[in-house]
Amino acid sequence: MEKTRLEKQFDFCREIDKEKFIGRQTYLSDGKRKENDAEHAWHMAIMAILLNEYANEEIDVLKTVTMLLIHDLVEIDAGDTYAYDEEGKKTKKEREERAAERIYGLLPQDQQEKLRRLWEEFEAWETPEAKFAHAMDNIQPIMLNAATDGRSWEEHGVHLSQILGRNQHTAEGSAVLWDYARQNFVQPSVESGKIKTEE
Amino acid sequence: MEKTRLEKQFDFCREIDKEKFIGRQTYLSDGKRKENDAEHAWHMAIMAILLNEYANEEIDVLKTVTMLLIHDLVEIDAGDTYAYDEEGKKTKKEREERAAERIYGLLPQDQQEKLRRLWEEFEAWETPEAKFAHAMDNIQPIMLNAATDGRSWEEHGVHLSQILGRNQHTAEGSAVLWDYARQNFVQPSVESGKIKTEE
Repeated sequence: MEKTRLEKQFDFCREIDKEKFIGRQTYLSDGKRKENDAEHAWHMAIMAILLNEYANEEIDVLKTVTMLLIHDLVEIDAGDTYAYDEEGKKTKKEREERAAERIYGLLPQDQQEKLRRLWEEFEAWETPEAKFAHAMDNIQPIMLNAATDGRSWEEHGVHLSQILGRNQHTAEGSAVLWDYARQNFVQPSVESGKIKTEE
Repeated sequence: MEKTRLEKQFDFCREIDKEKFIGRQTYLSDGKRKENDAEHAWHMAIMAILLNEYANEEIDVLKTVTMLLIHDLVEIDAGDTYAYDEEGKKTKKEREERAAERIYGLLPQDQQEKLRRLWEEFEAWETPEAKFAHAMDNIQPIMLNAATDGRSWEEHGVHLSQILGRNQHTAEGSAVLWDYARQNFVQPSVESGKIKTEE
């Protein structure tokens, strides 16, 4: 028997609880444990609400917040691929496409299409909302890494060139915020030697 | 020296990381650990986006989502007061008022007023947005409790009359969703004896 619309919606709502099990590499500000995807999404959503005045182009805030809340759901199946994991990144797209098919597929047709389009828009990095969402996605962990004096960067032996490479498009979302983050969150860990600057 | 607007905003964004340390009594769907406030807020925000079609009255979705994302920030200082902790509830309001003063006080004046008004609107439970947000706040843990076959209810010896009492206004946000939750999430745990029905 076909499930009702509401049954499908609650199936999805229950399923996404699993995003709380997906660990990231960023330490929380007390340094006691690392963040998970759901916490990261919550944090960025509030940041987008408070910081959207600095977006390079005007953005639809609800659309951006929704994008941020849902964009890591594919990691329930595909896992988190660390920003500097070059091997993992090779299979990331295929793993995430399959995950999107299954997870968004739990929803009624209209909502599954809407959320999937929003995720694809985020991935395509072209609209003002996607650009600003990526700025949040990149700046939030940088802010937390700075709060623990670059611990995650140090543990992974991250090089400044990797951070700058990964953030080459961050300023397209917000030049002001990327400028602030670079000076106030990245630079101190360069000076303390937690971020490597020589080969 | 007075901090800049952006410094104040980032001070707040860093401070709210602490919401991830505030534990709740609800088990995650795998039963391995309990949820924290940030995860709970993230989960409800997505639920509000997907389920607002069932609100009794039409709601402003961005306003409701923002309300849900921020309404537990006061617990960073005041702690989580369990739904059935009658002693804790006596001092809850005063503890939370002090917390709101300090935490929202980190923001620039306009944003501190906006967020604080939104939190107060949630607490007052009068507008369509506040009523729907409370429906999410009550139904999300009920959905998760059902996913672990009523484990948290059983551990706390919760009585059906307490659940119904706590949810006496949930249907004011959404009669459809409360009806569904009662039948599909509460009733099974009544039948399995995890929720007490006799004194």
